[in-house]
Amino acid sequence: MSQSLFTDLYELTMMAGYWRTGHAEDTATFDLFHRHAPRGVDLVVAAGLEPTLEWLEQLGFSDDDLLYLDSLDLFPDGFLDWLGDLRFTGEVWAMPEGTPVLPHEPILRVTAPLAQGQLVETALLNMVSYSSLVASTASQLVAVARGTPILEFGARRAHGPDGARTGSRAAYLGGCAATSNVVAAADYGVPPSGTQAHAWIMAFPDELTAFRAYADTFPHQTVLLVDTYDTVRSGVPHAITVGHELAASGHRLRGIRLDSGDLDALSRQARQMLDEAGLSDVQVLVSGDLDVARVRELVEADAPIDGFGVGTSLLTAREDPAFSGVYKLAEVEGRPALKVSGEPTKTTDPGRKQVWRTPEGDVLGLAHEDLAGTPLLEQVMAGGRRLRPAPDLAEQRARCLDRVAELRPHPERWTLRRSPELKALRRELLATHGHAEGA
Amino acid sequence: MSQSLFTDLYELTMMAGYWRTGHAEDTATFDLFHRHAPRGVDLVVAAGLEPTLEWLEQLGFSDDDLLYLDSLDLFPDGFLDWLGDLRFTGEVWAMPEGTPVLPHEPILRVTAPLAQGQLVETALLNMVSYSSLVASTASQLVAVARGTPILEFGARRAHGPDGARTGSRAAYLGGCAATSNVVAAADYGVPPSGTQAHAWIMAFPDELTAFRAYADTFPHQTVLLVDTYDTVRSGVPHAITVGHELAASGHRLRGIRLDSGDLDALSRQARQMLDEAGLSDVQVLVSGDLDVARVRELVEADAPIDGFGVGTSLLTAREDPAFSGVYKLAEVEGRPALKVSGEPTKTTDPGRKQVWRTPEGDVLGLAHEDLAGTPLLEQVMAGGRRLRPAPDLAEQRARCLDRVAELRPHPERWTLRRSPELKALRRELLATHGHAEGA
Repeated sequence: MSQSLFTDLYELTMMAGYWRTGHAEDTATFDLFHRHAPRGVDLVVAAGLEPTLEWLEQLGFSDDDLLYLDSLDLFPDGFLDWLGDLRFTGEVWAMPEGTPVLPHEPILRVTAPLAQGQLVETALLNMVSYSSLVASTASQLVAVARGTPILEFGARRAHGPDGARTGSRAAYLGGCAATSNVVAAADYGVPPSGTQAHAWIMAFPDELTAFRAYADTFPHQTVLLVDTYDTVRSGVPHAITVGHELAASGHRLRGIRLDSGDLDALSRQARQMLDEAGLSDVQVLVSGDLDVARVRELVEADAPIDGFGVGTSLLTAREDPAFSGVYKLAEVEGRPALKVSGEPTKTTDPGRKQVWRTPEGDVLGLAHEDLAGTPLLEQVMAGGRRLRPAPDLAEQRARCLDRVAELRPHPERWTLRRSPELKALRRELLATHGHAEGA
Repeated sequence: MSQSLFTDLYELTMMAGYWRTGHAEDTATFDLFHRHAPRGVDLVVAAGLEPTLEWLEQLGFSDDDLLYLDSLDLFPDGFLDWLGDLRFTGEVWAMPEGTPVLPHEPILRVTAPLAQGQLVETALLNMVSYSSLVASTASQLVAVARGTPILEFGARRAHGPDGARTGSRAAYLGGCAATSNVVAAADYGVPPSGTQAHAWIMAFPDELTAFRAYADTFPHQTVLLVDTYDTVRSGVPHAITVGHELAASGHRLRGIRLDSGDLDALSRQARQMLDEAGLSDVQVLVSGDLDVARVRELVEADAPIDGFGVGTSLLTAREDPAFSGVYKLAEVEGRPALKVSGEPTKTTDPGRKQVWRTPEGDVLGLAHEDLAGTPLLEQVMAGGRRLRPAPDLAEQRARCLDRVAELRPHPERWTLRRSPELKALRRELLATHGHAEGA
């Protein structure tokens, strides 16, 4: 089956309905936006755009796909023939990956024939949501680490191999310095990181033998895991022995890694022991179930740590693993649409929109308005084709770090106002549904 | 790049070390097990075995993979040539997918040349963890729903497209009745489910027109989403109108779906309105941010609900998105190994082991022991080749439901004892590390 079948069944049944009722080719605009920042994240960073555009460009159903759909005995006659010829021909406006984005601001705006715009909902939400979740968490970690590198170690706990790869990409985009995941490193040019696990230490008769074997194999790249038996009485002293042996042969020990216990106390003890042994250039790296709160604590306590390895909490977005992304119809055939909800904050914004960033905060307005500030949505696809090659990920990362550095110190600017014209349109449409604004 | 690069860098550096120190071909046994059930799950169901075996069978590095690794300027001379010829040649014993499993029981046991056993750690943990998390959550949902079907709707919030597909498979294995995800349905034979979203209703001038258009397209398969404007005053009455129109043309309305609001009260009101309109065979389905706790509440309140659509909480395993899976060395060259930890419950079990299930609980013992009960680990791979074709997923699901139905009513059997021989071995090894057992 092709990846074009990656959609909820109801997207296909709705397409069939639009087709049958003559609405499939109506021009529709959909917004993909999020409703609130994930718990534990203050500033959301948009991500996942490039994989999404790639998927859209390749959209098209194979013969196997169509045979499978036919086997469901569900769709009206003629629909699957029509579906077989379908390609994505729409236009996409989007926030560049790495842009800080506020709730209710479109991350993506899709204008396409209604049936196409509907079809792509599931995949777009899926791809933007997970990447944005991880990029935002990474950005938060980088902020609390205040310059100490964050290394992403989450492959084993991510949700599937592809989840791991996507997550590693997003973590780097959000500001991580490296990944443990080799396939992500290779595919996206992320620096790879890693040396040895407890299994290495246990595979040798004793810790010192294991350390020496590693140093012998990687004299230029040795970082030693010191907590397998007893960090202070065994691990660090053995690492110091190997550090001196490496120095005697013209090399140097790069670092030690603490993976358990009281990382604040242990990092201080290890730092002092290394310094007293003349190994003050040996780094102290820590890992072991770290998350934003734990990294913040260690940094605020001034623990002498040179790098944080963060895995599970980052790639599973453990604190809030579901991004509040939604994809809503905003306009059809030039007619603005909105979804009214019992909860006023869930009522959507009608019309084809743009977001302007200003020193006083963001403004959500209608795309044809001429407002002050920097427009955040850029056109990235026309007629179903990308308008530019995929940007270099390392450059995107650098831009993300810049944009976040600009905005993060100014929470007073993290506000979204609606333009008077958008407000008026919203009020008018709510009135036709018998709702007063805010009711 | 090939999927064989899906590994943490440290697996490759350790392999290089084993190779250089002459240990690459040492025979080693690793156990993959979990430490505790995820929050919100009482009984864990093992899953993810088939994708794992497929990955192992295909293991092998491409020229591109090797060129990339060479470009890191990290590995000792000769290692990459050796790596280029490597295939997985080990044996695997495993719990069949869908087996209820207790903490510390091996879900997988890998015996292979040390370097191979080490290499596969990341991928095995990744694949077993996410699938087991979702299968366990699905099993829990099925238990609290007491016979009312659970439909899995999580594709848009799962962690990546592949995560969604894997998650849909695991959810079905754990007992879900259907998925919204078409590619998972097609690839794994899961029944697909879905009709229309709010966007459909909004794309028409009014709700009744939208309902009629759907019923006209799918007269045999109409389920109507009734909460876009006002469930009780508009949605249900319009659905009743269309139900009568369908009946008049020899069809019938299959169901309505409530996606927001007080589902307990609304399902009762909707049920009563449908019954009074002579539509007592029309089902009431509900969805909207459901999870185990919410489904339990609705079932215990006897709300008249015929199906639960559960998405985000299931496929993101929201309550606890990180499975506590670990992969630990248990034996090398016939020498049993254990990892001692500051936390006694984290000390591992040495030796090549088997699990026996008995009416008095499970027993963890050494594989060569002859203990009473049913052994749970079956050999599924020898010499790197699967010993049997992949079982049919629907059959696996039926077996999972049976096994869970047997065990779930008897929490007194959810206990794990160690055999006297395993206990003695553990005590002996702890003593050599200077630890008293339990210290």
